[in-house]
Order: sequence, then structure tokens, then C-alpha cells
Amino acid sequence: MNSPDIPQNRRIVLASRPSGAPTPSNFRLECVPVPKMGAGQVLLRTLWLSLDPYMRGRMSAAPSYALPVAVGDVMVGGTVARVEQSGLEGFSPGDIVLSYDGWQDYALSDGSGLTILPAGMSHPSRALGVLGMPGFTAWYGLLKIGAPIAGETVVVAAASGPVGAVVGQLAKLHGATVVGVAGGAEKCRRVREELGFDTCLDHRAPDFAAQLAAACPKGIDVYFESVGGKVFDVVLPLLNTFARVPVCGLIAHYNDGLYDNKDAVQASDRLPAFMGQILIRRLRVQGFIIMDHYSELYAEFLHDMQPLVEDGRIRVFEDVVDGLENAPQAFIGMLEGKNQGKLLVKVSS
Amino acid sequence: MNSPDIPQNRRIVLASRPSGAPTPSNFRLECVPVPKMGAGQVLLRTLWLSLDPYMRGRMSAAPSYALPVAVGDVMVGGTVARVEQSGLEGFSPGDIVLSYDGWQDYALSDGSGLTILPAGMSHPSRALGVLGMPGFTAWYGLLKIGAPIAGETVVVAAASGPVGAVVGQLAKLHGATVVGVAGGAEKCRRVREELGFDTCLDHRAPDFAAQLAAACPKGIDVYFESVGGKVFDVVLPLLNTFARVPVCGLIAHYNDGLYDNKDAVQASDRLPAFMGQILIRRLRVQGFIIMDHYSELYAEFLHDMQPLVEDGRIRVFEDVVDGLENAPQAFIGMLEGKNQGKLLVKVSS
Repeated sequence: MNSPDIPQNRRIVLASRPSGAPTPSNFRLECVPVPKMGAGQVLLRTLWLSLDPYMRGRMSAAPSYALPVAVGDVMVGGTVARVEQSGLEGFSPGDIVLSYDGWQDYALSDGSGLTILPAGMSHPSRALGVLGMPGFTAWYGLLKIGAPIAGETVVVAAASGPVGAVVGQLAKLHGATVVGVAGGAEKCRRVREELGFDTCLDHRAPDFAAQLAAACPKGIDVYFESVGGKVFDVVLPLLNTFARVPVCGLIAHYNDGLYDNKDAVQASDRLPAFMGQILIRRLRVQGFIIMDHYSELYAEFLHDMQPLVEDGRIRVFEDVVDGLENAPQAFIGMLEGKNQGKLLVKVSS
Repeated sequence: MNSPDIPQNRRIVLASRPSGAPTPSNFRLECVPVPKMGAGQVLLRTLWLSLDPYMRGRMSAAPSYALPVAVGDVMVGGTVARVEQSGLEGFSPGDIVLSYDGWQDYALSDGSGLTILPAGMSHPSRALGVLGMPGFTAWYGLLKIGAPIAGETVVVAAASGPVGAVVGQLAKLHGATVVGVAGGAEKCRRVREELGFDTCLDHRAPDFAAQLAAACPKGIDVYFESVGGKVFDVVLPLLNTFARVPVCGLIAHYNDGLYDNKDAVQASDRLPAFMGQILIRRLRVQGFIIMDHYSELYAEFLHDMQPLVEDGRIRVFEDVVDGLENAPQAFIGMLEGKNQGKLLVKVSS
């Protein structure tokens, strides 16, 4: 039992590693005392927690591009936080910062990796979305790898999500024909009507393959991949000569043992044929992890993107979940495609 | 029967499409009259015919990046030829030209696609090898896609072939550690001792995978792919983060139904896992067909490569077969890995 007199830090830890889709039992809410700030530190109060698909990878012990979260450790995640106490030059109580504090109310920091956000920023949560990691992912993958030119056809997986929504709108601004793919009629409607994609198709439709072919009469020049699975299978035969496929994620496979190839179910190996298509159609297929590019290109991204967001040329959807205790269920739902936009947990106001 | 008085053009036509590896019965040697030159044409006498793996693709009806050779048509191929008669301004009898006349003694041309080679060029056959399509393929794929930096590890498939030999030597000149892969001890010895690769491994060795891992203690940064099959399978787990894989050919699959995926034999589908590796390791896998890049970059290539060849920094092997009638057998042998270097048919002197 914790004394009610001691300020509490609620935190959500990895209770066990999921096998397949995560369940609530893989998470545990703990209450511990708020950590005591030392010299050269700041104490941060989480305001917003970002929930993102990559976190599924961190829950597994399989090798990936980042270390897994240890069982019993706090789940990782990007956050917007307020400085509560400061023992660190350059930070004052009340400053709003972009941080990486994970799924908890309070965290200590020595300042490394913290970015102070502009005072009075109207939507600080955007630092976790369109002006943060998802937006930067969209911008880098589309412009630095996909590089669409006017008149080309760009297909965007997970088109209503925080990456896909920005990819499609940027591609429209570059003069491309943009076809989104999303799960469900309502998502597709919003992508068409509110984000201005030329069209958006529901991958759950039984005739999805035929619909996609009809929507891309000139083939596909850029496929922005974040999903994998059956959407990729349907896209592949439609790729044009010199098509580019930036790969920023494969959410359809995060629960299916993809990375260790345990659960492959196709009867035959399509890898040699895929290499043949890469050759014959001169495809460029390139993976990227946006963390690699912050020092080199984040400033250029912000310079490009901020005016587009401010004047409304790039629109964003946010799905806000209230309360840290609801993060696990929201995260599980996101992996099932239930969110309608950038998923954020409002941890404190 | 052709009259002995009429000059004959021997030509090798596609008699039938191969199923699997080509056999001599897929080719037919025909004798027809030498074609009569019209106004605005030149009559060319073939001196050298280049034999290259891509020709296997042209023998199939399956869709590829170029039209198939029709059954009954002359097999296509790059040639060095002498102008016998000229009705075309700018061409004089005796000029030596780079042309694309195919497997025959004589051809007509309206001049399109012809390049006059410098008079007195010591080795005009090099225009079909190190200074032609294979050399350009090596240069483009290595420098424009692979882009190795000093200290990186470059692995080169088909290292003794006309592309691989140039790839490895260029990579050495750029300061990379270069590991060749070839079929057989003698090829490997020549690649090591005569071309100066750091090492060269025989992919037929039972412990080839272990040998390659030992030869690449820091992993692989660039894999120059022209082979596919088991070499690729062994390379894949050794690719480093940010590795580049230029793909210019897949000779191991040309006879196995790769392109229509008929003959896949693996029990499980490795494509999703491959996409996962592309993401996690930020791989860039890119196919290219050198014909796409002549107008843009051939001059730059020649400017770079000619001095390297002339002063011996880039060495080349040539395998010369005497007589057009021996082209089919030489071609079949090349697909089995029997040639030791750039395969050329000496059609006339």
C-alpha cells in the first residue's frame, strides 16, 4: 500500500510478452512514488502520450532495430510533458517539452533528447503527430525515397493513419494522383472527403484487388508501404517500371511472427519471383526508420511542414483517449485498425 | 539450295522456345543471301558477337523488359562490325562500328544505334565488354546504387564474369573490402590473383555459407546481385543495416521459371520475412537495366573507365569462341557457368 500523502506515479509496464496480438494481460498498471529529482535533472509531468504501431515490436524479444522493452519495464513512447521542477539550466517549471518518457505520469530527465516547444503553441500534441515522428516519416519516405512527380500515381496504405494521411496530402501537393487504402467505409469516406485524396478503397471489400486495378489505370508509381500482408500482395502486380516502394512499417505482420518467419502460410516461396519483378520492373524497395534521419533532416522537414499545417493545406485527424489507464486498450485497438487518426492519450491537462 | 555464286549470310535463329535450360535444338543455323543495301543504309559484316545472359530472357515468351525474339527470327545480340558498303553519309567502308546485329554474318542498318569506334582501336571487342554493356552495368550498379565507401564490405556474385570482375575492381579502387563469389576453384583463383579481390569463394563448396560469414566479419554493405538462388539466400542474413543490393540479373533463375513463379520449390513463403528485413535493416534493393541509362550516363562512364582499362587498373578476361556456328553451344555453356570471362564469338576477322 502506498501512502496517500506521497505523490504517486502511475506507470504501465510490460507484464509479459505477447504471443500474437497483445492482450490487456500483457500490461500492468503500477503505482510508485514520483521519482525524486537530483542535480542536473528535470521532473516532467506527462501531458500527452503518443501510441504508435512500432511499440508492438518493442514488446517482442525478437531482434529488431531497437532493443526490446524488458518485462517489468515501463512501456516506451513519445510524450509531450510539462516541466514540474528543474535543476537543469535552460529549463523552467511550466516549459512544455517533447520527450520520450513512456507510458507514465512522471519521469526524470537529464535533458538529453528533450526539445522545448514554443510557449503558447496552440496544439502541442501535434509535436507527436503531423509535426513529429509520423509526419516526418511521411515526409521523408514520400519525398526522399518515393519522389513522386506530377501525374504519377501514388498508393498509400493505412491512408487515414497519422503517416498515411500526410503522405497522401503531400503527394497531392506534388501533383500526383493519390489512391488511399484503409479499413472500413467511414475511414475511406473521411480520407476522400476531408483529406482530399482522389479516392480511397476499403481493403476489406471482397473485390478490393479489382477496385485497386480500376483506380490505377496507369499502374502504380509509388506505393507507400506501412502495412504489408494482403494489401502489398494486391499492389505488387500493379507496380510500374521504375516504381518506388518506401517501407516504413508492416503493421499487418507485427502480430504474426513475420520477423522470425515462424508463421509463413503460403504454400510456395514468392521471394525469387519478387526479386525477378524488382529486376524486370527496375523497382526500388527501400526500408527506413525515421529515427536515423532526425539530425540530418528534421529541421528541413519542420521548415516545409509547419506552414502547410498552419494554413490548412495539410489536415490531420487526432483520436484522443482520456486517461493513462486506457492506453493498453487503445493500443490493442490501434493494431486492429480501430483508430481514425493519430492516436493520443491525454494523460494530464 | 543456295547458289554458291550468291554471297551467303549465315544466321542463327530461334528454332523453338526452351523449356528450362536451352539446348542446341532451340537454335537453327540458316544460310540466306546477304541482304541488298538500299539508299540511306549501310551493310555491316559482323566481326565480334557478344554472348550475354540476358539473351536467355529473350528466348522466352514471358513478359520481361524487352520483347521476346519471335520463333524463326535471328537471335539478338550486341556486335562489333565492319562497314562493307555505305549509302549513308558519315559511314565509310572499313569503319568499325558498335552495333546490335545479332547472331549473323551480315546486317543492314539505317545508322540508328550505330557508334563508330576510333580507327585503330587496339581491342575493338572491349566495346562489347569492359567498355560496353557489361562494364557500364558494373559501373552504374556499383557507383549509382551500391555507392560503397572506404572500409565497407562489398560482395560480388559471378565475380569472374564480365560484370562482376569490373564491380570488384572498381570497389577495390574505392577502398572497399571485396569478396567475390564464383563457381569453381580455378575461377576463384583468377579472381583473387589476377583481379586483386581480397578473396573469392566457391559457391559450390559444401560450407559456402560458413566461408562467406567468415570472409565478412563486419557483415555485408553492398551485395551486387546478378545471380539469385542460393548465393542470395546465403548473403541475406549477412546484410548490414543500410546495405544496398543493386540487382542487374538473376542468372540462376533464368532457366527455372522464376518470372512466372511456376517452379517455386521452397515449402514456405519467404516474401513477408524479406520485407521485414528490408524494413528492420533499412535495406535498399533496386533493380536496373542498363539500357535505360545510356543517354544519360554512358559518356560519364566511358570518361571514368577508359583510363582505368588503359593503364591496367581494371583488368578483364575474355573467352573467345571461334565461328558463328559455335555460338549456341557457347551460350548454353555460359548459362551453366562454364565461361571464364567475357564471352565473345569471333565471327570474322
